[in-house]
Amino acid sequence: MIVPYECRCGSSYAPTADRWRCDCGGLLDLPLGAVRWPPRTDVRSMWRYLDAGDLPWRDVTLGEGDTPLVREDRELYLKVEFASPTGSFKDRGAVVLVALARALNASRLVADSSGNAGTAVAAYAARAGVAAEIFVPAGTSEKKLQQIRGHGARVTVVEGSREDTAAAAAARVEESGAFYASHVYNPYFHEGTKTYALEIFEQLGGAVPATLVLPAGNGTLVLGAHRGFAELRAAGLIDRIPRIVAVQSELCAPLAEAWTAGRDEPEPVRPGHTLAEGIAIADPARGSRILVAVEDSHGAFVTVGEDEIAEAHAALAARGLWVEPTGSVSYAAVRRLRAEGSSLVIGGPIVAPLCGSGLKASL
Amino acid sequence: MIVPYECRCGSSYAPTADRWRCDCGGLLDLPLGAVRWPPRTDVRSMWRYLDAGDLPWRDVTLGEGDTPLVREDRELYLKVEFASPTGSFKDRGAVVLVALARALNASRLVADSSGNAGTAVAAYAARAGVAAEIFVPAGTSEKKLQQIRGHGARVTVVEGSREDTAAAAAARVEESGAFYASHVYNPYFHEGTKTYALEIFEQLGGAVPATLVLPAGNGTLVLGAHRGFAELRAAGLIDRIPRIVAVQSELCAPLAEAWTAGRDEPEPVRPGHTLAEGIAIADPARGSRILVAVEDSHGAFVTVGEDEIAEAHAALAARGLWVEPTGSVSYAAVRRLRAEGSSLVIGGPIVAPLCGSGLKASL
Repeated sequence: MIVPYECRCGSSYAPTADRWRCDCGGLLDLPLGAVRWPPRTDVRSMWRYLDAGDLPWRDVTLGEGDTPLVREDRELYLKVEFASPTGSFKDRGAVVLVALARALNASRLVADSSGNAGTAVAAYAARAGVAAEIFVPAGTSEKKLQQIRGHGARVTVVEGSREDTAAAAAARVEESGAFYASHVYNPYFHEGTKTYALEIFEQLGGAVPATLVLPAGNGTLVLGAHRGFAELRAAGLIDRIPRIVAVQSELCAPLAEAWTAGRDEPEPVRPGHTLAEGIAIADPARGSRILVAVEDSHGAFVTVGEDEIAEAHAALAARGLWVEPTGSVSYAAVRRLRAEGSSLVIGGPIVAPLCGSGLKASL
Repeated sequence: MIVPYECRCGSSYAPTADRWRCDCGGLLDLPLGAVRWPPRTDVRSMWRYLDAGDLPWRDVTLGEGDTPLVREDRELYLKVEFASPTGSFKDRGAVVLVALARALNASRLVADSSGNAGTAVAAYAARAGVAAEIFVPAGTSEKKLQQIRGHGARVTVVEGSREDTAAAAAARVEESGAFYASHVYNPYFHEGTKTYALEIFEQLGGAVPATLVLPAGNGTLVLGAHRGFAELRAAGLIDRIPRIVAVQSELCAPLAEAWTAGRDEPEPVRPGHTLAEGIAIADPARGSRILVAVEDSHGAFVTVGEDEIAEAHAALAARGLWVEPTGSVSYAAVRRLRAEGSSLVIGGPIVAPLCGSGLKASL
């Protein structure tokens, strides 16, 4: 599973603990891999789908993945991603990054996040015995800081924007040579999130959904889910991939705006204060790739408003599902698209994830 | 799966929506059932183990059960029960009670809990479309009340002790004829928690652990786990059941005190203020049954102190596991018994559950 990083400039790099971007400054990617299918039957977690012999994953795993897919009605399934060891889908990517850090003999790692990725990386780093430093923006809740510190990580609070936090983390990586466990920069994160797609394919008995409705901030789930189905397609196991409907908040929608305008790259926006704070990314580094993935899937971008998010949150709670506000976004989009009679949500199963637990944050 | 309730007085009752105790005042039990083995392969949740054709479980399930069993060292496994739809093992029992309520055509139900059982029942009742009223003691956190109300349940706050809360709930049941979704009085709760045992048996590849270390308050997990292994034994699938080490807080240990004194029934205690609030049950209604289950297993009771609970919580966090304080109790007991070289934790696999998420409550 450990294959070289690639940059669009043509460079490639065998992964090392201190490599997190190309010498040209570009983002690192990974080529499509050969999907493991059928999955192994002796493992129940997401690791059943990965050829991970070169990763020490058994020393790191908390049993992540294998989340419930519950049926809401004839066509709609919700994937209960918050029933996960740290309470969000970020576990899928975090465990891979930390296992990679261990495989590369990194003694310490750095991550930056105001939310679920930070606690997930801190938890898995603790399990793996890798020292962690988590950069968080000022204003991060005391409860979250307590958890990150509880996992033994050092917390560094950064005044300024989320982008400032990322810049401070990158600077620490540069000066220290630590492994950068970034869900944005390290493409191995998507090796983890791609299992979201493979798991759905297995749980539906080998059927391909018509539509995946996915929240999009930094696009870790969009890129991972696309990757999973693209690998199945490349292996000849399926002949089409589901359309991906990527959802942003109206108050922070750089990708949706670029999509509508027909641009290849998003332009940074000034974000409003949205309930969907987990996807309020003003300048997503992998923006062009997210746009390409959605286009390849014959999907689309949609935005949802604050009232729609709040209504979806309440509707989910009335169905027994307690999610964080950001976790309501994909369901909000499903409700809207159905009400509009959109062709994006017809033709077969629709799957939407509930990404984070309402125990983390509520309305 | 719906079989008559039995009382020790000799009476039995076909379940109805308003039946929650014997006319003699005694507790209702269920006879051991015929275990379904091997489990069905087309379901991943705990329902793979149950012959539930007469329960409308597909309309209620959130995919509970199927929780990770992670290996800590050569002999110790931790079962990540908090990676569950409402964040605790109580989901296993709550979903069965609510499905039963639906099967019995109950239009409303009542439950009482200061903690995980209340939110679990509220969530599943919401999903099942059964109106719920949850009785909670004064002092229950606003966050928890918000969640229960978010699920559409009515909350009734009761001044006084936990026992007063239960009494108020029972009075409401009596006056209204509502289904009493009680994790203490309704023995079908243990039909759910018994899947904890069956799942471990399957996850260990058909091996029987030497020891189950389990927290004990009202004994829902002790009684369920004992039931699961007893059914396997009755079916001739195993020839012995694991010893059960039941753990109480030093500050509220009526069962451990009865065990030590050789009594058949616990005497009510005046509870101290313990970190393990989830098992601080001063007068457990099923006390004599819990004592018998532990004895049948050749197990024992142990108590743990506040420092041990706090240390276990920190040790779990340092291993990537963020649990509520009560959820640290079984691990605290494992640490102590190992340090003492106790024979209770030798001879084969030890399994301890992490019952509730640290996102619910922390130190």
